[in-house]
Amino acid sequence: MDTGSIAWAVTATALVLLMTPGVAFFYGGLVKAKSVVSMMMMSFGALALIGVLWVLYGASMSSVTGLWDFSGNPVADLGLTSLASGETANTDLLGSAFSATFAIITVALISGAIADRARFGSWMLFAGVWATLVYFPVAAWVWGGGWILHLGTILFGADSAAAVIDYAGGTAVHINAGAAALALVLVLGKRSTFAKGADKPHNVPLVLLGAALLWFGWFGFNAGAEWTNGLDGVGLITVNTLGATAAAIIGWLIVERVKDGKSTSVGAASGAVSGLVAITPACANLTPGWALLLGALAGTVCALAVELKFRLGYDDTLDVVGIHLVGGLIGTLYLGFFATGTGLFLGGGLQQLTLQTVAALAVLGYSFAVAWIVGTVIEKTIKFRLEPDAEVAGVDNSVHGESAYAMEVREIA
Amino acid sequence: MDTGSIAWAVTATALVLLMTPGVAFFYGGLVKAKSVVSMMMMSFGALALIGVLWVLYGASMSSVTGLWDFSGNPVADLGLTSLASGETANTDLLGSAFSATFAIITVALISGAIADRARFGSWMLFAGVWATLVYFPVAAWVWGGGWILHLGTILFGADSAAAVIDYAGGTAVHINAGAAALALVLVLGKRSTFAKGADKPHNVPLVLLGAALLWFGWFGFNAGAEWTNGLDGVGLITVNTLGATAAAIIGWLIVERVKDGKSTSVGAASGAVSGLVAITPACANLTPGWALLLGALAGTVCALAVELKFRLGYDDTLDVVGIHLVGGLIGTLYLGFFATGTGLFLGGGLQQLTLQTVAALAVLGYSFAVAWIVGTVIEKTIKFRLEPDAEVAGVDNSVHGESAYAMEVREIA
Amino acid sequence: MDTGSIAWAVTATALVLLMTPGVAFFYGGLVKAKSVVSMMMMSFGALALIGVLWVLYGASMSSVTGLWDFSGNPVADLGLTSLASGETANTDLLGSAFSATFAIITVALISGAIADRARFGSWMLFAGVWATLVYFPVAAWVWGGGWILHLGTILFGADSAAAVIDYAGGTAVHINAGAAALALVLVLGKRSTFAKGADKPHNVPLVLLGAALLWFGWFGFNAGAEWTNGLDGVGLITVNTLGATAAAIIGWLIVERVKDGKSTSVGAASGAVSGLVAITPACANLTPGWALLLGALAGTVCALAVELKFRLGYDDTLDVVGIHLVGGLIGTLYLGFFATGTGLFLGGGLQQLTLQTVAALAVLGYSFAVAWIVGTVIEKTIKFRLEPDAEVAGVDNSVHGESAYAMEVREIA
Repeated sequence: MDTGSIAWAVTATALVLLMTPGVAFFYGGLVKAKSVVSMMMMSFGALALIGVLWVLYGASMSSVTGLWDFSGNPVADLGLTSLASGETANTDLLGSAFSATFAIITVALISGAIADRARFGSWMLFAGVWATLVYFPVAAWVWGGGWILHLGTILFGADSAAAVIDYAGGTAVHINAGAAALALVLVLGKRSTFAKGADKPHNVPLVLLGAALLWFGWFGFNAGAEWTNGLDGVGLITVNTLGATAAAIIGWLIVERVKDGKSTSVGAASGAVSGLVAITPACANLTPGWALLLGALAGTVCALAVELKFRLGYDDTLDVVGIHLVGGLIGTLYLGFFATGTGLFLGGGLQQLTLQTVAALAVLGYSFAVAWIVGTVIEKTIKFRLEPDAEVAGVDNSVHGESAYAMEVREIA
Repeated sequence: MDTGSIAWAVTATALVLLMTPGVAFFYGGLVKAKSVVSMMMMSFGALALIGVLWVLYGASMSSVTGLWDFSGNPVADLGLTSLASGETANTDLLGSAFSATFAIITVALISGAIADRARFGSWMLFAGVWATLVYFPVAAWVWGGGWILHLGTILFGADSAAAVIDYAGGTAVHINAGAAALALVLVLGKRSTFAKGADKPHNVPLVLLGAALLWFGWFGFNAGAEWTNGLDGVGLITVNTLGATAAAIIGWLIVERVKDGKSTSVGAASGAVSGLVAITPACANLTPGWALLLGALAGTVCALAVELKFRLGYDDTLDVVGIHLVGGLIGTLYLGFFATGTGLFLGGGLQQLTLQTVAALAVLGYSFAVAWIVGTVIEKTIKFRLEPDAEVAGVDNSVHGESAYAMEVREIA
Repeated sequence: MDTGSIAWAVTATALVLLMTPGVAFFYGGLVKAKSVVSMMMMSFGALALIGVLWVLYGASMSSVTGLWDFSGNPVADLGLTSLASGETANTDLLGSAFSATFAIITVALISGAIADRARFGSWMLFAGVWATLVYFPVAAWVWGGGWILHLGTILFGADSAAAVIDYAGGTAVHINAGAAALALVLVLGKRSTFAKGADKPHNVPLVLLGAALLWFGWFGFNAGAEWTNGLDGVGLITVNTLGATAAAIIGWLIVERVKDGKSTSVGAASGAVSGLVAITPACANLTPGWALLLGALAGTVCALAVELKFRLGYDDTLDVVGIHLVGGLIGTLYLGFFATGTGLFLGGGLQQLTLQTVAALAVLGYSFAVAWIVGTVIEKTIKFRLEPDAEVAGVDNSVHGESAYAMEVREIA
């Protein structure tokens, strides 16, 4: 393989790896000063655990040989040992490293929904089990030769050129994480303090730092896979990753301005993430103009969707559902209408929309169901949720024995 | 095009995009805790707005077909739609994405001059108008086929090989932003608290984080354009981006030590930025030794230049004039003396110095004038500057309804 | 040279440069709020000074022509001037820039050992002298054609294929910095507050930010040199830089859990660094499975090793010895057992282990000795350590006249 593609692959791997600390800071800044350590540790713990599991068996599970296989054979390539030799070792291992970073961040994303109230050990257990039962198989279905990759021919016959479009992870990453987040929120229940306006970010610069690292890394996330494609689409993907995100910020800020009279920095950060989520599946299949519109749509809709939790009463603390599930659905379904050449409004029929819908709902349902079962089993056995006393006193000290700041820092009442 | 150049272009785009959050943190750390949200939002707002405008019409405006064109036709390629097809779509779009990040950061840089006292909506309006009337055309003049690019043949005849050197944006970015900053400072006037020693950075680690992200991203900023040149000059540019910056820090720290007896971390960060600014136009046309000297000069002179505002009485709050305008001028003019092969002291005559001077003054004058007019119109109509009460109470709460830190944080008197 | 390799080299240079600010934040977050400026300035000062010295003469010193040369001729290429011309200028300069970043970070690493008590000017003097007498020559010995590079043929005859393995700096960087750190700790002595449990990190998010930037940059650190090798090994190196680090975090967290009942975020960050240190020399010569084991071993052993200072009574404040010296030794010696094809347990004999041991001890001894002498001379002449009063009052204000936070921040007693 040409060195340019390899150079981009290793760069993209580093970029996507940095996104998980980005999630840690984004989420960490949004919570109270007494639970920021816990919040960040859920991301760093995922980094460590999923990194190890990936090398051990996740890589093997994430590609299948048979269309209807649940996953690849976990012990086929234990410790990536067989990949480490042979002529294609370099590119095989590089592809594996790149894919590892997707598994890691998908797990980390879930954690924001259950901020302020989870036990670290239980979280780590959930993370490992969910990655094994959900992420690794779903990655195989969507990208690794499985049924979602072949859904076009399954539904429309072997001659059909139609195929689900999920370039960088609308279903496998964002709907997947968002659905699991919703399940865990229902399992763990509400915090006693749950109420509109009760949560103030303890550290806004940390939130914006997280958002900045996410956007930065997302160029690797969206354009990284082009390394197997001669980098032919990186131009379009890069423009779209910039434009859709910018438009989503504007969209979110306008909603805030109209609703509350003021645009906020947390809104800008959330808007950026919503745009990035929505453009993820669509980055390679929209012209820049349609990508702008998708971004604006995602920013606007997600800014409204994050209010749903107060109406419906589920404590999705940091809006993983409102941003990743909703944004992932928007991006995935939007392709049904505007995908270049195949979208309903751009020369195609209903096939693309059908495929997008089926793929989205399948991943949503599967991830939700397994997350709910795994979460419930943990809660009923070793407890997932902290004791109420520990929650009020602050997760950081209870769970990790640490304070985030050894300065005089008191919460503002 | 070869994949190596493409790999570098997308990497450089991500790097330069990260610089605008870098500006946000650098500026944000320098202001008071009660205006850091506002400060950062001026950068993030620019990111969003200029990102959208670039895709819509900025890209089209930034290259011209006729030497004396004011700008390209804004609607020639609305939404980058035509770029998205055709054989060169990938490289065209990648070039567009890379250039977008320059437009964004140039606008963001201006904001530091008017810290603590601007309305967000007015800033966003200014940002959009200034980008449209100044940045997009000036980029076309300097890099997009316009009159500054051809100034050598204009002044010295069609046979002349002489040309303005502005490799990565001494005129188009730093002098441009610095001149606009000076204009806005005059329009908005001084803060009531303006006085030497009155401004203490509220968060030094945030300042250094911003400087670090800026330096990191600047490798993309300075060396990025080599992607259209077979990467032939990236070695020299990379060494110079490291050496000049290092020397500028040393220069600034020595000035502080001599003047005040102590070297400061804010001085180190400011020194780094001054060196980066100065080497920007010059990075590809100086040997590493002369680049070191330029860095030392920029660090020394800018360390002195930031005192001018107290003597002359203009409240350039975060020294955009003292660093970006002065540093940009130093780098641009230094090439007249030391550019390899063409500088006055290195084998050339006065032509290079003449060209550098004309280009620098032209951009300076144009940017200042338009910024002053646009700023004044905004101030006289919808108001650019905050009410005095809001300014004292804190911009963040007044403008965004947010506090940066939900911990007990009081300003030190 | 192909553009893909060049693209990766410039990317890697930027990545490794960012690591030194990463060190600054990692160390800065760990100290008290009254010495964070000082702590960060030791890294930023190293960035500036070693950057300048590298361009001036460090690059020249870091490669030798004769096997037993102490170093290259410092004035052979003053200011990199001769490199700046000729056909290979681009790659020569790029290689020089990449190597500069290694020199810088190695010096910066040392500073954590003497947190809270060093004079800035004395540190800068030490940094420059140690780089000149130790880092530049040792880099020449290990990578630049010197005796450690040829140790295999020296010990086992000209026909021997055996060679020291130090792919990215187990000896030249980590053992080197760790040994110097130990020497300085002995020269400067203990802080009056030195005691187990007395040091609380003042800003945990800053610590994790530093660790994140380090990990991110480390992909450039470990895989960067592949740019001279057609990028053939980047896949393996990237997987190992991810897997070993992840495993080290798990190892460290388990030790904490077993010992103290709780896993900490500072432990996660320290574990990550210990894994990164250990995999540094070994990243290209272990299969991913053995790399996982090395990571787990490093995380476990370093988590125990950082307690040694309390038993033995040396105030290695931020565990430079416990992590970089111990981790560097673990990684370097582990290759003697598990290096693919040559390790004692993987098909080789004792030669690899012998070579690794000799190289490690040579660098350890040399660095320790010179650092002790240079440190002692500085302490006895211009004083290296601060006055006790200044130390208690806070280094930041005494040395730099700055406070890190202009908010009401008091240390928690």
